Amino acid sequence: MDLYETIHRRRDVRGQFTGAPIPAETLTRILTAAHAAPSVGLTQPWDFILINDEGVKNAFHTHVQQERKTFESTLDAPTANRFATIKIDGILESTLSLAVTYDPTRGSPAVLGRHAIADAGLYSVCLAIQNLWLAATAENLGIGWVSFYREDFLTQLLNIPTGIRPVAWLCLGPVTHLEETPDLERHGWRTRRPLSKALHENRWTER
Amino acid sequence: MDLYETIHRRRDVRGQFTGAPIPAETLTRILTAAHAAPSVGLTQPWDFILINDEGVKNAFHTHVQQERKTFESTLDAPTANRFATIKIDGILESTLSLAVTYDPTRGSPAVLGRHAIADAGLYSVCLAIQNLWLAATAENLGIGWVSFYREDFLTQLLNIPTGIRPVAWLCLGPVTHLEETPDLERHGWRTRRPLSKALHENRWTER
Repeated sequence: MDLYETIHRRRDVRGQFTGAPIPAETLTRILTAAHAAPSVGLTQPWDFILINDEGVKNAFHTHVQQERKTFESTLDAPTANRFATIKIDGILESTLSLAVTYDPTRGSPAVLGRHAIADAGLYSVCLAIQNLWLAATAENLGIGWVSFYREDFLTQLLNIPTGIRPVAWLCLGPVTHLEETPDLERHGWRTRRPLSKALHENRWTER
Repeated sequence: MDLYETIHRRRDVRGQFTGAPIPAETLTRILTAAHAAPSVGLTQPWDFILINDEGVKNAFHTHVQQERKTFESTLDAPTANRFATIKIDGILESTLSLAVTYDPTRGSPAVLGRHAIADAGLYSVCLAIQNLWLAATAENLGIGWVSFYREDFLTQLLNIPTGIRPVAWLCLGPVTHLEETPDLERHGWRTRRPLSKALHENRWTER
């Protein structure tokens, strides 16, 4: 699939997962694409935990539902009503979950490009996630990034060692379709900002 | 260009910039691709500062050279010798620089998906950067991410308001070619890790 077509088709999927299997060679192409991302000092500080164990998925899903309630409790009544219509995860319906982690010790101590910006390694992990997301889209699969969780819960659930940080929980799998409009816009939560408002020339300009 | 071809051709460019102009419609396609990235709560918390002012570029380049020395001073002799052969930026040779920033207030206070993970907004900015990087590659342009700088220096240089965080300085422009092998591997700094070492099943496994 063409790059631009893939970028503009990509969606953050919650409700369209079918649960159908993912061919092994498809998954390999997707993970190889993620692993080809740029990284500070060529550290490739990411790891991918592939999760199909129902017990692990169910435990995470229960935790996410609790965090949904935590967020809901911070909202005023009209906002809470709008939120009530929005599905926030496809953990149980999607074929596979992937946890993506960041290891700051990889390539240490002399990480080229990180001495002044400690978060540069974390940024690299996100670049790999976007490669993964686009590759899945090109394979006609959906990805949904779930972020209603506490990092220490996920660390314990997946036996992630101290010092390694979970960055994302992604739901992956075949979908009935990808929506044209992002879910949060379809549900009246937010509308997209015009690109022109995000552009500045030479120095920051107040908008 | 095909997505997978783009992902695998993409390089972090330092030395191959020609300085030739970028057609306006090409730049618009690239920025539109960046702006189409996913974002937590549909906040689109990124801004892009397009920099062609020679004074701004020169001031940043001088700062980067100072930070190069700071990093160099932390290295043992053999590592410093290897580092001496590695070019770390193409600020002066590339056609255009882009600073990418993160605004945590966008969509606040009720950012859907960020109550438990404060960095989720920062992650969104990185997803936009990877879209931008791939789009530039598909347009046969190079991108180089420069991270030898202090955030407070860049904030002052570009009049970035308090609370808005600079995330990246990217050099963009036509190139003579893209290298097949990443610079840091070509220069013997690091070799790439096999994908298999980054994969785990259901729970973390020590490698």
